[in-house]
Amino acid sequence: MTAKKARKKKHPIVVMKFGGSSVKDAERVKRAAERVVEKAKKGARVVVVVSAPGDMTDELIDRAMAITQEPDGREMDMLLATGEQVSIALLCMAIKEQGMGAISLTGPQAGIRADNVHTKARITTIKPVKIVRELKMGKIVVVAGFQGLNTNDDLTTLGRGGSDLTAVALAAALKSDVCEIYTDVRGVYTTDPRMVPDAQKIEQISYDEMLELAGSGSQVMQARSIEVAKKFGVDIHVRSSLEKVPGTLITSMNAAMEAPVVSGIAYDSNEAKLSITDIPDRPGIAAEIFGALAKESINVDMIIQSAAQDMLNDISFTCSRTDVRRAVVALEDLQSKLRAKNVVVDDTVAKVSIVGVGMRSHPGVAARMFATLADAKINIQMISTSEIKVACVVQQSDGKRAVQLLHKAFALEKGRS
Amino acid sequence: MTAKKARKKKHPIVVMKFGGSSVKDAERVKRAAERVVEKAKKGARVVVVVSAPGDMTDELIDRAMAITQEPDGREMDMLLATGEQVSIALLCMAIKEQGMGAISLTGPQAGIRADNVHTKARITTIKPVKIVRELKMGKIVVVAGFQGLNTNDDLTTLGRGGSDLTAVALAAALKSDVCEIYTDVRGVYTTDPRMVPDAQKIEQISYDEMLELAGSGSQVMQARSIEVAKKFGVDIHVRSSLEKVPGTLITSMNAAMEAPVVSGIAYDSNEAKLSITDIPDRPGIAAEIFGALAKESINVDMIIQSAAQDMLNDISFTCSRTDVRRAVVALEDLQSKLRAKNVVVDDTVAKVSIVGVGMRSHPGVAARMFATLADAKINIQMISTSEIKVACVVQQSDGKRAVQLLHKAFALEKGRS
Repeated sequence: MTAKKARKKKHPIVVMKFGGSSVKDAERVKRAAERVVEKAKKGARVVVVVSAPGDMTDELIDRAMAITQEPDGREMDMLLATGEQVSIALLCMAIKEQGMGAISLTGPQAGIRADNVHTKARITTIKPVKIVRELKMGKIVVVAGFQGLNTNDDLTTLGRGGSDLTAVALAAALKSDVCEIYTDVRGVYTTDPRMVPDAQKIEQISYDEMLELAGSGSQVMQARSIEVAKKFGVDIHVRSSLEKVPGTLITSMNAAMEAPVVSGIAYDSNEAKLSITDIPDRPGIAAEIFGALAKESINVDMIIQSAAQDMLNDISFTCSRTDVRRAVVALEDLQSKLRAKNVVVDDTVAKVSIVGVGMRSHPGVAARMFATLADAKINIQMISTSEIKVACVVQQSDGKRAVQLLHKAFALEKGRS
Repeated sequence: MTAKKARKKKHPIVVMKFGGSSVKDAERVKRAAERVVEKAKKGARVVVVVSAPGDMTDELIDRAMAITQEPDGREMDMLLATGEQVSIALLCMAIKEQGMGAISLTGPQAGIRADNVHTKARITTIKPVKIVRELKMGKIVVVAGFQGLNTNDDLTTLGRGGSDLTAVALAAALKSDVCEIYTDVRGVYTTDPRMVPDAQKIEQISYDEMLELAGSGSQVMQARSIEVAKKFGVDIHVRSSLEKVPGTLITSMNAAMEAPVVSGIAYDSNEAKLSITDIPDRPGIAAEIFGALAKESINVDMIIQSAAQDMLNDISFTCSRTDVRRAVVALEDLQSKLRAKNVVVDDTVAKVSIVGVGMRSHPGVAARMFATLADAKINIQMISTSEIKVACVVQQSDGKRAVQLLHKAFALEKGRS
């Protein structure tokens, strides 16, 4: 930050991203336009990224589902891309109504190229020639999020969190000073305020911590956008679209800042635990199981293999609840081949994670977590750790209590411990 | 027709156009897909053009109007173009669901270039490279009507009747055998069946007659599409999207067909009559009046200048009722300069027109029309004639009766006279 502030430009480029709820109706569109115009009047060159209005994406999906249960990916993208196109046009109209010049660009017009995986493409390159030209002409440039052009010159969409990704990637390509993500929450909190009323807004958090929080079910931003921000050093400012207060800055931590032990506590009840029991122990079993799941594109999160007893193994793992059915089918196909006894599903679990870069240098953080849960008689079913995270799977009925106790144990109600 | 039939191709290219009501919901989309698949299975290479679903265009306009009373033309085009994009994606899904290969193309992807007049652009060129490539691969190609790419590489829309125009222009560019316009009526009728219950469907009609009918308020197709069809010799088949019966073929008349005296009777109650009275007679008055109206982009239809009496002139003309207010403002600005006495508006008039190529060789057709109206004591306020049309302005309260009497006088209930 300090280095950046030192070379602060006279007309910095700022990328502002508004999500669907911030452009869901005429009133919200006008309010977003006000924020944009205000920023531009302060001298910034502004690039805005918008999502589709409110429920439009869901409505479009419903239209497709009324026609076919298996819509073609290319046509789905052609359909869904219209949502963001509606938003950019309306937001430009609102900005112009407030007296500033503005121009809307679709993802392809903005120079965003993507790969050929329809409905969840990855951005490959951005050549923002048209954006730069329009900025030079003094215009506010409004870009459709969530979309790009693939190598067949077809429209493609970027999947979940796609508009955030568009914003961060554009900020990187334009070397902009900051990427502001406007949302209906005030920023990133030490934990979900619906669970812990005295959860605190975090002023500043590192990419790595935010990545662990996102991966552990904190829904403010998807991991893929944070990864891109980290790679290109883009500062992300997550803030409220309704209130004019600072939010949370996601950035690379600098030396001046004292690393907190624990920054936040994440809670995720969207995973299920699957176990395959009593598998005769031999090499290659794990490879076979997780190979089969990978073939079905099932993302596996935590994995435990129990120590072999009587030459029999248990293997447990967690995956998204939406993938459970497909996972079970894949495992049952393997069951007789592996001579396993059972495939057991438990979808009454929850994952509680503590995240903080300070763990690296503060020993005993995991121990304090385990002791806190043990004192409350909360049974830990699975544990997974990284350098800056400890995650525990517990019974879902214990989940909320676990978060509250940990929030207190690490004194997060006083800001970060 | 005969020449065309003789060189009938094994895999003719057929352009099929479906209007908004034919794709307004999932059921209609599926039904349209059935018609398309049926045609393709008979061996035709099919290009489909679709409009936005049902009321979507109006809904999008409402969204814009909730933000600004004067939406920017470029942004309006960006907004409205999404409607057709939704239709092409959904129709492709429905075609694929029925087991045929299909691909959707936006206007720009289809190679449709247009001029830079936003919201009512004219098509300049069509380079259907991508369409031809996809047809060769055996796919049904579904193109978004009503849109193209202008010289700034911006999306632009083609204004009223734009999807018909896309269909006819594509048929010309692809040298297709026929352009089928699917609509919610069975074809072109001798007059509006709501006015004359025994009005007859016309099997075949010339471009020129259809142009006069369109210009005289028959709403089946806009004049601009017919002009393009005539210029490039594209046969247009106007037919029902619900019933599988032949409709009306709009084509160049061939020698084998006996030219009818009167083909149809058109009725138009969307015009108003304006008069400027007692203008001192001097050269250049008409030029000044109609120059001022042209500057306001007001299309004037019929014009009468009364013979000068006492060196004072009356000038009357008709224009669309939606333009009346602007026309009056323009005329009142001129009034004192011209030293005219009054500007009088009459919006209780209607225009009744008889149309038929046979008039050219059958004298007395106009006389028969005037006599029919005179016998019924219907006063004629203005008359305008072309080689194949006679139009009379009458009191609107006499309009329906005039149409019924003329339909009978020219024996149209027996098919064309």
